[in-house]
Amino acid sequence: MKTNPGLFFEDYRLGETIVHAVPRTLSGGERALYHALYPARHVLYSSDKFARSCGFAEAPMDDLIAFHTVFGKTVPDISLNAVANLGYAEGRWLQPVAAGDTLRAESTVIGLKENSNGKSGVVYVRTKGFNQDEEPVLEYVRWVMVRKGNLAAPTPSAVVPQLAPAVVPEALVIPKRLNFSQYDFALAGEPHRWADYEVGEIIDHVDGVTVEEAEHMLATRLWQNTAKVHFDATVREDGKRLIYGGHIISLARSLSFNGLANAQMMVALNAGAHANPCFAGDTVRAWSEVLEKAETSRPGVGAIRLRLVATRGAVGALKADDGKYLPEVLLDLDYWALMPM
Amino acid sequence: MKTNPGLFFEDYRLGETIVHAVPRTLSGGERALYHALYPARHVLYSSDKFARSCGFAEAPMDDLIAFHTVFGKTVPDISLNAVANLGYAEGRWLQPVAAGDTLRAESTVIGLKENSNGKSGVVYVRTKGFNQDEEPVLEYVRWVMVRKGNLAAPTPSAVVPQLAPAVVPEALVIPKRLNFSQYDFALAGEPHRWADYEVGEIIDHVDGVTVEEAEHMLATRLWQNTAKVHFDATVREDGKRLIYGGHIISLARSLSFNGLANAQMMVALNAGAHANPCFAGDTVRAWSEVLEKAETSRPGVGAIRLRLVATRGAVGALKADDGKYLPEVLLDLDYWALMPM
Amino acid sequence: MKTNPGLFFEDYRLGETIVHAVPRTLSGGERALYHALYPARHVLYSSDKFARSCGFAEAPMDDLIAFHTVFGKTVPDISLNAVANLGYAEGRWLQPVAAGDTLRAESTVIGLKENSNGKSGVVYVRTKGFNQDEEPVLEYVRWVMVRKGNLAAPTPSAVVPQLAPAVVPEALVIPKRLNFSQYDFALAGEPHRWADYEVGEIIDHVDGVTVEEAEHMLATRLWQNTAKVHFDATVREDGKRLIYGGHIISLARSLSFNGLANAQMMVALNAGAHANPCFAGDTVRAWSEVLEKAETSRPGVGAIRLRLVATRGAVGALKADDGKYLPEVLLDLDYWALMPM
Repeated sequence: MKTNPGLFFEDYRLGETIVHAVPRTLSGGERALYHALYPARHVLYSSDKFARSCGFAEAPMDDLIAFHTVFGKTVPDISLNAVANLGYAEGRWLQPVAAGDTLRAESTVIGLKENSNGKSGVVYVRTKGFNQDEEPVLEYVRWVMVRKGNLAAPTPSAVVPQLAPAVVPEALVIPKRLNFSQYDFALAGEPHRWADYEVGEIIDHVDGVTVEEAEHMLATRLWQNTAKVHFDATVREDGKRLIYGGHIISLARSLSFNGLANAQMMVALNAGAHANPCFAGDTVRAWSEVLEKAETSRPGVGAIRLRLVATRGAVGALKADDGKYLPEVLLDLDYWALMPM
Repeated sequence: MKTNPGLFFEDYRLGETIVHAVPRTLSGGERALYHALYPARHVLYSSDKFARSCGFAEAPMDDLIAFHTVFGKTVPDISLNAVANLGYAEGRWLQPVAAGDTLRAESTVIGLKENSNGKSGVVYVRTKGFNQDEEPVLEYVRWVMVRKGNLAAPTPSAVVPQLAPAVVPEALVIPKRLNFSQYDFALAGEPHRWADYEVGEIIDHVDGVTVEEAEHMLATRLWQNTAKVHFDATVREDGKRLIYGGHIISLARSLSFNGLANAQMMVALNAGAHANPCFAGDTVRAWSEVLEKAETSRPGVGAIRLRLVATRGAVGALKADDGKYLPEVLLDLDYWALMPM
Repeated sequence: MKTNPGLFFEDYRLGETIVHAVPRTLSGGERALYHALYPARHVLYSSDKFARSCGFAEAPMDDLIAFHTVFGKTVPDISLNAVANLGYAEGRWLQPVAAGDTLRAESTVIGLKENSNGKSGVVYVRTKGFNQDEEPVLEYVRWVMVRKGNLAAPTPSAVVPQLAPAVVPEALVIPKRLNFSQYDFALAGEPHRWADYEVGEIIDHVDGVTVEEAEHMLATRLWQNTAKVHFDATVREDGKRLIYGGHIISLARSLSFNGLANAQMMVALNAGAHANPCFAGDTVRAWSEVLEKAETSRPGVGAIRLRLVATRGAVGALKADDGKYLPEVLLDLDYWALMPM
């Protein structure tokens, strides 16, 4: 058979590194589409002139463009036979990506644990994205539940990696040239600086977006993510197309402009759960909670750790008494961003 | 509260200038999306080679890209609490915008008039768009009806600006390098030159486009226009998303290629009314009426003043006997364009 | 009348060449949109770095971008009054197109044959696309059935051109700099090289895509193809918008990555039939059959002739016993591609 059946649980070997196919060159086209698909307005990514005032040669690509591009590369090798995307950890953006950069990705298997039912198992991979100069631009750990293709395949010894509950502030990579000393808050859209946010503060991002099939499919294809379930209405019994979880991440992050306009750069992905599936017709809202604040090695640049929640329901509501996510919650993301102090 | 509640009628001060946030760098991506979203075919904006034959370094961005980008910047400060967009006047394109340009906008309050009901008022602003060199690229007056946030706020003295019924031909800005002496009518798509149009002539643009939710949302987001009512199906009681009026302007202008292929550059916006709301599923058609013709200071370049009507109904039908727009009329726009003579 | 009524059968003259209007400059924006609209993953068109390893200065535009752009130019002159698009032959890509190139098109009438009903006739044209340096980039023969505008117009002598059943391998144009000696199969996504395919082999491309109205309209407009029936839901009695046949070609070709990831460059279009109309809501799948293999003049570069079928139904099923296409078949395309040997 010439087509890719994807890998099954028993196909993964602890320690092996998988080189993902189809590197991708990004251009102003991807940026424009990103801004058409999501209400993205963080000024550093919108204006070359503003980006220059912060030390960059031009506006970098939105950080989630790098994430989606790298993630999309991994789909044929990691999640084609996945039952569920279970979590993210230890994610870090290592270098901004600019128009003209070509990204490729590879993943190393860092953990394997067969489920007790013998039908599937959890695969842990550390994925890295590289640019055309083989410099790393992004890394993250992700674990997925993958079906076994051959139920008789032997059970590997269980190895579950120790993962940090969050990236420590000292490990955040501050882009080399980043400098907020000329930061213009009027042009950025809000006056609130790092010092104005308090741990525990909840921010309602107010706006809502009703999602369309064409939109999430355009987005998901743009990242060359080809998982059937996003495109083929005949896959699920209910005839619905499941929306790529990353689409909700970008939607929520973009909505968070309203209240977090100065949380400019995403630099770490501490954790993330796609709490419930999202479908076309859902109206997505977002809220954030300030989890932690830290100074960085760069004068004037503060780090803020945020919980970003996408929901079809009320702001602030997250889990039921049994600790499970409420059915209206779509995403619970934990990340670090950089802000002018 | 960290989020932007928008400005209410009592927040505006006569003479104040508001600097709008989130400047925007445009690229070939925005142009491609514009041509995917609208049936835009005016050749000067489609072909670098043709544009060079007319004196430009490359094809400029469609004039309405500049308009939408500048307009989008103003939304958070001008129309977040607007009840209605009442009119446009004295609009002029001052310089073509090219890929790579970064646009920002500011608006000066030039009129204020509280309504007799004490619940809202009309705000008149003159908006200017600037490029990265702080050169003006576009200006227009717009007035909107805005709610009062505090009904007890004092009523300002009414100031209603005197606005020209139309930009006079002498005030039209002809792009510095524009030269139609090598104009190729075969490549432009139609043989009709300025001299071929008569005042009073009605042109049926023939084609119709049925509008989709995904399309108008992609467009509106691309201009970073974040007015809720365009994106959130839960805002209106009828569950409909109101289509951004500018989407209809671009749709109608693009449809007008068929019959006005040589009305290349929009140089003035004399007036405009969004006569009725448009919703997904509507099939939009367009017709034009020649209102006026004028020579310009540039040899070979004529100005033509056009009424551009977008409608769900018949060509030529505009208003009922009571002077109100017919319910099928969506847009009544009055603009100047430049044509080879 | 200022608008273009299109040409009717009696308007065409054997031997005449029609210069099509509105040349088009392509950019990274068109490429990004192409990759958002179709699940396109052939690596040569995705990565500048990979393309450089194959001898190019940067990744060329997907070959079908050139086809659609040229085809779109011809619509106002060839198919505005067409009843049916009957076939393609003798198509060849003559030179890759890169971002920044400006394409224009012209068509020569090479055959005319009035139908016995006297109401329509078949027009055969040879269409050529040129870049900004007037170098040919693409040519193909297409024939369409066109209505007569004046039923009393005299019947021309029937001339039906002799068309090759397929482009012979010797006539394939191998891009000047193409070199597969450094070809990286891991990055390309599949290990199968030219030698691994057998004539008669059937490849199921597995994935399916459910098509949305917004998507096919965005695509069709991007190529400045303005045929009403694709955009205006009021044209057909059933209220459906007919999907541009080229949309299905691109969809099928992109789906064929899965199993033909190394069939990189389309170099000839031997034949093609839009077997049945496609509408939004249809789920499109694709399969290929290897029809022929040939060596080329370039060492290491093999040619593979493929039948590419788009279908709403089962893989392998094509025609009924009466020789007619099955109702679920959408497209039957015959093309040559280049592969590393």
